[in-house]
Amino acid sequence: MLTTDKNRMDEKIKAFSKFGALEGGGITRLSLSEPALQARAEFKRRAEDLGMTVESDDIGNIYATYAGAEDLPRIVMGSHLDSVRSGGNYDGIYGVLSSLEVAETVIRDGIKLRHPITVMVWTNEEGARFEPAMMSSGIVMKKWTKESMLKVKETGGTVTFGEALEASGWIGDESNRLNDKDYCAYFEPHIEQGPVLENEKLDIGVVQGVVGMINYDIILEGVSSHAGTTPQQYRKDALRAAAKVILDLWDKLGSLDKDLVFTTGEITCRPNVHTVVPNYVKFSLDSRHKDPDVIKRVVDIVKSLPSEVYGCKLSYEEHWGRSTINFNEQLLGFVENAAKGLGYSFKRMYSGAGHDAQYVSELLPSAMIFIPTKDGLSHTVVEYSSPEETQRGANVLLNALVEADKSL
Amino acid sequence: MLTTDKNRMDEKIKAFSKFGALEGGGITRLSLSEPALQARAEFKRRAEDLGMTVESDDIGNIYATYAGAEDLPRIVMGSHLDSVRSGGNYDGIYGVLSSLEVAETVIRDGIKLRHPITVMVWTNEEGARFEPAMMSSGIVMKKWTKESMLKVKETGGTVTFGEALEASGWIGDESNRLNDKDYCAYFEPHIEQGPVLENEKLDIGVVQGVVGMINYDIILEGVSSHAGTTPQQYRKDALRAAAKVILDLWDKLGSLDKDLVFTTGEITCRPNVHTVVPNYVKFSLDSRHKDPDVIKRVVDIVKSLPSEVYGCKLSYEEHWGRSTINFNEQLLGFVENAAKGLGYSFKRMYSGAGHDAQYVSELLPSAMIFIPTKDGLSHTVVEYSSPEETQRGANVLLNALVEADKSL
Repeated sequence: MLTTDKNRMDEKIKAFSKFGALEGGGITRLSLSEPALQARAEFKRRAEDLGMTVESDDIGNIYATYAGAEDLPRIVMGSHLDSVRSGGNYDGIYGVLSSLEVAETVIRDGIKLRHPITVMVWTNEEGARFEPAMMSSGIVMKKWTKESMLKVKETGGTVTFGEALEASGWIGDESNRLNDKDYCAYFEPHIEQGPVLENEKLDIGVVQGVVGMINYDIILEGVSSHAGTTPQQYRKDALRAAAKVILDLWDKLGSLDKDLVFTTGEITCRPNVHTVVPNYVKFSLDSRHKDPDVIKRVVDIVKSLPSEVYGCKLSYEEHWGRSTINFNEQLLGFVENAAKGLGYSFKRMYSGAGHDAQYVSELLPSAMIFIPTKDGLSHTVVEYSSPEETQRGANVLLNALVEADKSL
Repeated sequence: MLTTDKNRMDEKIKAFSKFGALEGGGITRLSLSEPALQARAEFKRRAEDLGMTVESDDIGNIYATYAGAEDLPRIVMGSHLDSVRSGGNYDGIYGVLSSLEVAETVIRDGIKLRHPITVMVWTNEEGARFEPAMMSSGIVMKKWTKESMLKVKETGGTVTFGEALEASGWIGDESNRLNDKDYCAYFEPHIEQGPVLENEKLDIGVVQGVVGMINYDIILEGVSSHAGTTPQQYRKDALRAAAKVILDLWDKLGSLDKDLVFTTGEITCRPNVHTVVPNYVKFSLDSRHKDPDVIKRVVDIVKSLPSEVYGCKLSYEEHWGRSTINFNEQLLGFVENAAKGLGYSFKRMYSGAGHDAQYVSELLPSAMIFIPTKDGLSHTVVEYSSPEETQRGANVLLNALVEADKSL
């Protein structure tokens, strides 16, 4: 089996960790910010040094291409290089740099490929500066219009996405956008962002899809009253009622299916004063599972919540959801064969988080490769995968690419 | 039995409801604000029209005095005229205006009293503009120094209490402060601010004291992780743990004693993002009971909380508390006799809320009189007591005053 260079892979991670580096570790590299533009420039310089042709499309997505032996559509691999605020050195950028390491290996080792290969950088995956997340793959896949996105203002600021894009110097031709004529397959390596691979002592996750999800706000409305003068039996305490519903949801959803994840991550309490009984509490419920039937049962559980809890009125609002996305079986087979051939332990798994690949999968055969995340922690400065782990992911990508090149 | 004038009492409430009136009802009359100064001026005008002498002390507390037949210390009655933001037309001001109505009855009806009587207005009882609450009675009773209070900045602004006091024109002589040489008894009428009198269909609360209290912050520390990628069994969800502790507290404290009140009114959740498992939740616990042994059992329950809940570390911080204050039995007897004589239903009860009377009780024999509060609601624009209820309270005060005048 072919292998990439561990030191070279690690050097890439370390080199790009400078762009937006925070004191004490981690980065803030918001989309199209100065540190993100520095990282883009460095990516371009390195790709061109390898003899790749670097282009961008009209929303600043970058495509670095190396020619193949035959006149065939390109195989593309990549991810994003923007981060959340106080993020880490792996989420996104690992997918770009492992793809670049694979290209470097192909080029330096003279591995002959029939197809051209492209290393890709998506603009604004995180949505941390300009909402929503996965903005550019969403534009390419027509989830929303480019026009509406150009007007989006940065969170907490006044610059629009359109202005930031214009100022970046990365606006290229719309015809360069990812499409199904010039491209035939998409691979996205990524850190798992969860604890499963680490806990199960596995090297590689063969990501067969992105789980479906549904989001609710659940609202409890009681009556505010004075903490000192209202006997307990007369209270309609919205926080007490919310606590009851949160625990009931853990009971009911927790026994539905072991792969279901659900989160009550956000809570608002009014008036939120220590001497006043709360009259209003709203909390979020985010539920994800690969099987639409399980999601349906989540919906049924929410619908069957009582209309009154401890004297408080219960209501809920359904927010956005998404259906489960399944990646391409042929590409997943290439990934599996690569892991197997390299002697790595692996398992098939779904991604609980969203990735550009979920949109791309509607356009091109797609697959993702996960590597372990230390303690399952991402979107934090302590995000970490070891040099051995980052190389293994690159090795799997390299061999999957070579098999795809032969088979497609 | 003597009675006050219902229409006159009601006119006073309506007249003072103008100062700081909000569209749609209620008032915002923060301490020493323009509307509060208007209300003070109106109080002074009305008291002087009755032939009373109006003085103030060095922290703007107002004393309107009518001479008695003998050279005896004064009997004082009153409350405050400041309100919380979006407060009502009864909390505080009712105590001032019912006292003024009693004085007006004494004066107009020519009721001969041996003692001089004083109607009093305390500066800044609510603490809504300048913290803490009961600031001026606390200064007089040396709970804190005047110097430290003068430096207190208004909440959300830059003006200090000292500057507002200076600008008010109400600074008088320190020797005018309430003291135990010139005064011999203190009565404070107030709305109940709770639902007990209304629910038990009682006219009058004979307030025998202010319950003791203890305050905690309870903190749960878990681990933040991604809502989509962290299986439930690996989670250390601080909000789930907090929900469990809140319900456990309801179970344990709820069965301690029927008169114990406890409130978890304030909650902070971090990072409070719907896609992230919360790693930190802090909530307040406010517990009040007249019996120190019951408060001690609350402390024991908090101390016996487990150190870990659903994998989250539990800790707590004890904040301020107060001991139960008991009012003067002789004065309570006068109040009871008055209610009985007038044919009003009444019961002895404790105040769960703090009042200036609790500090004054350390200086002078003191008692409070409660009237019902519609739906138990106060600190809100819908705060309401009927003209019948406001008059009944004034009638009880009048007859208690007359008995005190004979007995003291």
